[in-house]
Parts: sequence; structure tokens; C-alpha cells
Amino acid sequence: MQAILVDDKYKLIPGNVDEPDVGATEIKIRVKAIGVNRADTLQKKGLYPPPTGVSDILGLEVAGEVCELGINSKRFQIGDRVFALLAGGGYAEYVAVDERLAMPLPENLEYGKGAGIAEAFLTAYQALFPLADLKKEETVLVHAGASGVGTAAIQLAKRMETDIIVTAGSKEKLDFCMDLGAKVGINYKFTPHFDEEIRTRGYDGVDVLIDFVGASYFDKNMSIMNPDGRWIILALMGGRKTNEINLGKILIKRLKIMGSTLRARSNEYKSELIAGFSESFLPLFGTGELKPVIDSTYPLEEVEKAHEHMESNRNIGKIILKV
Amino acid sequence: MQAILVDDKYKLIPGNVDEPDVGATEIKIRVKAIGVNRADTLQKKGLYPPPTGVSDILGLEVAGEVCELGINSKRFQIGDRVFALLAGGGYAEYVAVDERLAMPLPENLEYGKGAGIAEAFLTAYQALFPLADLKKEETVLVHAGASGVGTAAIQLAKRMETDIIVTAGSKEKLDFCMDLGAKVGINYKFTPHFDEEIRTRGYDGVDVLIDFVGASYFDKNMSIMNPDGRWIILALMGGRKTNEINLGKILIKRLKIMGSTLRARSNEYKSELIAGFSESFLPLFGTGELKPVIDSTYPLEEVEKAHEHMESNRNIGKIILKV
Repeated sequence: MQAILVDDKYKLIPGNVDEPDVGATEIKIRVKAIGVNRADTLQKKGLYPPPTGVSDILGLEVAGEVCELGINSKRFQIGDRVFALLAGGGYAEYVAVDERLAMPLPENLEYGKGAGIAEAFLTAYQALFPLADLKKEETVLVHAGASGVGTAAIQLAKRMETDIIVTAGSKEKLDFCMDLGAKVGINYKFTPHFDEEIRTRGYDGVDVLIDFVGASYFDKNMSIMNPDGRWIILALMGGRKTNEINLGKILIKRLKIMGSTLRARSNEYKSELIAGFSESFLPLFGTGELKPVIDSTYPLEEVEKAHEHMESNRNIGKIILKV
Repeated sequence: MQAILVDDKYKLIPGNVDEPDVGATEIKIRVKAIGVNRADTLQKKGLYPPPTGVSDILGLEVAGEVCELGINSKRFQIGDRVFALLAGGGYAEYVAVDERLAMPLPENLEYGKGAGIAEAFLTAYQALFPLADLKKEETVLVHAGASGVGTAAIQLAKRMETDIIVTAGSKEKLDFCMDLGAKVGINYKFTPHFDEEIRTRGYDGVDVLIDFVGASYFDKNMSIMNPDGRWIILALMGGRKTNEINLGKILIKRLKIMGSTLRARSNEYKSELIAGFSESFLPLFGTGELKPVIDSTYPLEEVEKAHEHMESNRNIGKIILKV
């Protein structure tokens, strides 16, 4: 089958590889669209190797048509439209995946939208619900609010009647976040002390923090957390190494600081996550109350351009590859 | 009534104060025995002020006899033997407390034992169960294993068939912890690199960490946590300020680092905690399967000596004052 491979200069090039085997409880998907993730741009440079046993082809999420069933697989039929969370292997004509990691694609959504749901919404769902245990009317701070996970987090948090504060790097991105339901938008380029700005806007602090930034925001984050706050670290785009930290704040505020990634989790964990998400939120994509935010769509042949666009940090929401 | 007051040289002196009022859903307890906590030794020096609205008399736990009922209180009868968790006010002849924060004292336990249960076991229970969600056969590291909370944590964790590793500063303390059920004891005075020692003993790492130390152990703790580990910070006896920390470890290991204290929590939170603890573990004090570890008992007049003993860090388990 055709797939996108990485050459020795980290360039993405088309190539031929064997089709994947289909395990007993797996399904094979004929890939119609692929979601691009920041992890893909790191993996091609060798900075984010796939977990043991996983295809070294890039690609953490796809939408497509079920074209083969494992002998013990029973959740789908040949021809079903699905979207799926992958540990790798998505940049290809076909991919095989544990049937529990695939979800039926709501009828109203085309494949190009479906490929933008899994990583963003499951990551946001995991952070806000199983990890942060978000409660009604709390205050939520989402850094990088216009990212794929950010736009998903805004939509999910809004359903809990929370006040959502976002940071982003342009007026266009902030306006988009406000349209999605954010209440306060802070442009970090003009207002680097977002913690002071949040207080100026009338909040004592935030109850839940979705953090893709890490070290460069660490002290301000610590300062703006409310007592009993939950702080979920999902990426470290602002660096890994903090200055000295004052553990007294963690103790006195009774904070929970949690790191999480989705990719290296067990299929059991992922399938439970997907089951919870499917029950609570999947139907809302069918009614249009939740929607994947798609920044742009590239034909698969232009995958290099798609990566350049992601690396430029100009996207609002997901970048999609169409097969 | 008689109570212990703090003079302007931080000395503990007997004095006379008004008896406490009994709120509608409170009970009044004639105090028979009082548990001494490290927090008491800090509070008398002005380092740990009581929460708003709480008596400034020291004392976070007592055992005694119910001697008055609030008009809407219905869980106890006059004369019942109880022990209770307090936000303050225990170093006195009488104390009033929300009836939900008192528990019936098992018949086999005298007051001097009962006064040693609430703070230690509820703190350990909160850390291991609601916070760390301890699972069967995990590995648990308890720093300061011979402390009141430490000895309670060993006993509670052992009931989950976990492997328990403790650190402490003397052979006598470590032997005591092993008798309670710890599997590995590390004397931090001879083996400061407890993380390396844990690996030498055949463990990759620990799943749950009960931390009273903070800054001075921070890097070693980070190093020894297993993936998906839960790290509960309950005190900072080794300082507040860490060196720079590498957030990448929190992210890649998917750690949860949680600070917690009991005293400043709401009565609702405490009463739920007590309800969970009472259901799962209180009956085991009646059968002797769990037991408060009492280091020494002083008459109330010798409260200064009791504090000196606690400040010397020589105690194994709780120090009790008898009225």
C-alpha cells in the first residue's frame, strides 16, 4: 500500500509498504482523512519515538471506511464510516486498529471533519473529566486556546457552564476562542503577565488549568491556581526546566499537578476513555452542538506543506490531510 | 473551664476560659485524652494559625465522653464514648464539634488510644484512598514511616497487599515499621540515596509516595516514581524550595503530584472523609486488626514535656495527653 515515510533528512516522502495485519479484535480502515498532530512533527525528527510494537509510520488519528474485520471483532460492519485514535500508522492507505479505539462517524460529518475529532477531543476530555473532575461553574484557564486541543477544551468546558479564560498569540485566535464560548481572552504577546490580567478581570484564580506551555509559565500558573485547583500538563512548548519552586504553595493550596499524554496509554485505558467520551459527548457531534475546528485541509501529497503550517503556529484548530 | 493557653514566650500554661457554645448540630465532649500533633508545636509559635472562626486553643483531636447535645444533633447520646477530629480547641476540659466529625470509640480501646486515631488515620486514609486511589499489590513509599501518620499509612496500605517501603532515622524506628508490615526499611542517616537503595532492593520504582519531607528529597522522589505514580505531599519537614525541576518527568511518567492538608478543609469534606473511613476501616479497630500506635502518654500538666518530646523527633507513633 501507499504510505508517507520519513527520509534521512526528515522529509516526508511517499513510499510502498506492506498492508497492516488485522488482529482478532481489530478492524482495518481504508483511510480517507488524517488529522495532523504536533507529535507528528516531533516524531519525524526522532524526538517522539513511537511506543514499543507500534508502526513507525506517522499518524495518530484517521477517519475512513471499515474494509476488513478481525475474526473476533463485532462492533462494526464492512463499509461503516468510522474515526479512530491510533498509536501510529495513520499516514497510510490502510490502518488496523483495536475496534474499541474506533467510533462511528456521525452522519452529518464528512471524513475531513471526523479525522479532526479523536486526538483533540479525547485529550481535552481526559484532561477536564477523568483527570480534573471539572465541576459546574468552575473557572478554567486554557493556554493555547486556539489549538486543536484548546478549541476542544473550550467546547467541552462550556457545557459545564464554566467561565473559560484562554491565552493565545493573536487577535484572530482570541476572537475565534470567544466565538466558541471563552469569556476572557488574553494575548500573551501584549500581556505576558496573564496571572495579573486574570485578577484584573475580576477572578481570584482558576480552578482548572490546561497547560501546553510548561516551564516559561510555571510561576504564573502557580500564582493563579485557586485552592483545590487541578493543573493538567499536556505539553511543554515553553520548556521543561523550571526555576526553583515553592512546594508550600502546592501544600497550602492543596493543588493537584498532573502530567498526561494519550499515546503511550494502554488500549484498555484508551477504550475506557473512549467509552466515557462516546456516552457523554459523541451524540453532540451529530446535533452540531460540538464541532471539530478545522483550520485547513491539504491533499496527502502536500503533507510537507501541512507540517510547515503546523510548525508556524498559525493554525486555528486542526490541520487535515485528505487521501 | 480549664484549658492550656500559650503565653507570650510560646510557653504552654494552664488558664481559665469560657466553655464552648454548642451549635445546633454539634456535640460537646468532656475531654479525656488529647492527641499531640506537629501542627500544635507550630501553632504555638505562630507558624500555623487556626482557620478563620476556629478557637485559638491548640488541639486537633480528642477522645472523651459526650456531655451535651445540640438541639438538632442526633447521632450520639449523652455518655457515649467518642473520638473526634477538630480544627482546634482540643487542649481543654470541653470541646464542641460538628457531630459528623466524631466517631464512636470501639469498646476495646481506652480514651488514651482513641485520641491517637483521628489525625493520623484520617490523614493517611485521605492520602492513600481518595487522593492516591491505591490499588492492590502496588508499591508504596512512606517517608517518616515511624510518625503517627506513617504508622497509620503502613497499616492501611498493608490491607491492600501492597509492598511498603519506609524511610526513618533509626534502627528502632525501622524495626517498628517492619513489625507493622513494611517490607523494606531505609535508614536515611546511613543511606541518603534512598532512590538508589530502592532499586538495589529490586524495585523499578514506587506507585504511591507519602511525602512529609518536600524539597530536600524532591529530586530523588521524582526519580523513583513509577509511571502513573501518585505523590502526596503532606508536610515539608525538609524545606519548601526545590532546585529547578524537569517537568518532562511529570509529563512522560504521567505523574500526579498532590498537596493536601486536613485542617482547613470544610466540614462537608471532612464528614465525607470520616464516613468513608468509618465504613471501610473503623470496625478493624474493634477487632484489633488496626491499632493506633502510641509512643508515650503525659498528664496534661506535662504538656511542655510532651511538646519537647515531639520536637526531638524521637517518637514512634503518637504522643498523648491524658486529662
